[in-house]
Amino acid sequence: MGILTVERKLLEKNDIVAQELRASFKSHETFVLNMVSSPGSGKTSLVEATIRALHRKTRIGVIEGDVQTDLDAQRIAALNVPVVQIVTHGACHLEAPLVRDAYKQLFHLDLDILIIENVGNLVCPSSYDLGEDLKVVVASTTEGDDKPLKYPAMFRQAKVLVINKIDLIPYVKCSLETLRANALAINPSLRIFETSCTTLEGISSWCEWILSQGARRTTSG
Amino acid sequence: MGILTVERKLLEKNDIVAQELRASFKSHETFVLNMVSSPGSGKTSLVEATIRALHRKTRIGVIEGDVQTDLDAQRIAALNVPVVQIVTHGACHLEAPLVRDAYKQLFHLDLDILIIENVGNLVCPSSYDLGEDLKVVVASTTEGDDKPLKYPAMFRQAKVLVINKIDLIPYVKCSLETLRANALAINPSLRIFETSCTTLEGISSWCEWILSQGARRTTSG
Repeated sequence: MGILTVERKLLEKNDIVAQELRASFKSHETFVLNMVSSPGSGKTSLVEATIRALHRKTRIGVIEGDVQTDLDAQRIAALNVPVVQIVTHGACHLEAPLVRDAYKQLFHLDLDILIIENVGNLVCPSSYDLGEDLKVVVASTTEGDDKPLKYPAMFRQAKVLVINKIDLIPYVKCSLETLRANALAINPSLRIFETSCTTLEGISSWCEWILSQGARRTTSG
Repeated sequence: MGILTVERKLLEKNDIVAQELRASFKSHETFVLNMVSSPGSGKTSLVEATIRALHRKTRIGVIEGDVQTDLDAQRIAALNVPVVQIVTHGACHLEAPLVRDAYKQLFHLDLDILIIENVGNLVCPSSYDLGEDLKVVVASTTEGDDKPLKYPAMFRQAKVLVINKIDLIPYVKCSLETLRANALAINPSLRIFETSCTTLEGISSWCEWILSQGARRTTSG
C-alpha cells in the first residue's frame, strides 16, 4: 500500500511549506519558538507569564494549536496580544500549512517574537518542522524524571528544555538532577531553564534569554 | 494520493485483529483494560497500586506500551506479575497486531485481568481498538481541569475516567468539580474514580470495581 511513501511525501510537503515560513519569519526579523510538551505541562501558563514579562518591551504574538476549543487563545487574548487559534479537529500535531494560514493574520504586525504553542503531545509534533527557529520542550516536574528516556525524539529535536512546575518538587516523585541528567543523556546540547508559573521563579532568566535570541535575529537579519 | 483510503485500510486491518483478540480474551474469560492518558499522569503507578491490591486475589498480567525503554515493564516485573513490554520505536500509540504478538506470551496463563498500558498520548490511542473490554482514561489533577474539552475524543471513547494525583489538589490550579463536569459534558455515561497512588486514597474502590467487572466476565463467559 506504500504507507512509507505516503508518509514521506506528507513530510516532504510539510518541509517545503516550513522552509517558506522560515524565509518569511526571517524577512520580518521574527524570532519563532515552537513550544511542545505533554498535555497539562503548563505551556499556556508559561506563555502567559512570558507575555506579561515581555509585551511592553517587544512585539509578541501567539499561534495556539489545540485538538479542540479556543480556550487557550481566549487566555492569551485577555493579555491584549495578537493570537490566532488553530483547531486541528482531532489531529495530534500542527503542520506547516496550518501555521502558514494562521500566520497570514499576523505577518503584517512585524512581530519580534512569535510563539507557536503546539498540540499537547510528546510524540507526534517532534516530526513536523513549522519553520521555527527552535523547538522548546516543556516538561513539568509532575510528569516524573524519566520522560526524556521514554520520549527521546522530542528531547532530541528540541534546543531548549523548560522544566516547569518546580514549585511542586516537594510533593512529587521527581528529582531535578535525574531529569536534567536524563535530558542531557538524550541531547547533550540542550539549554535548560527551570520555572514555576505560580511563584514566577526562573521566568526572568527564561525571558531574558528569549529577548537575547530575538535581538540576535534582528541584528543578523 | 489516497491518504484517507490508506488510513481507513490501516484502521480496518487494526479492527480485524482487534476482533480476533476480543474473541481470544473472551474465550479465556480475561477482563481487559486499555489504559490511556497523557505522559506522566501516573498510569504506571496506578497499575502498580492495582497489582499490589489484587494480585493475591486474582491472576493479573500487564502489557506495557512505550515509545522507548522497558522502564515500565521493569517496575511491573518487580511485583512478580507477568508483563510484556512493547517498544513502538517512535510510534505514538499501540495497534492491535502489536498487542496480539505480546499476548502470545501471556495467553497460556489464563489471566483473569489483563491491563494494557498504552503509550502516553491523549490523542492518537483513542482511534485504535485493541480488543479491550473498555478504555480507562487517566487524568491527573496537575494537568488542569480543561483537558476533557481540549482532547474530547479520548474522553468520548473511554468508559471510565480515573482522576489521579488527588493528593496534589491543594497545590495546583484544578477544580475536581470542574474536571468532573467537563468530562461528563463530553461523555455523560463516564464512570469516574478519584485516586492517589501516594496516599492510596480511592485505590480500593477502583480495585473493587475491577474485580466486580472481572467476575461478571467470568460468570457470563
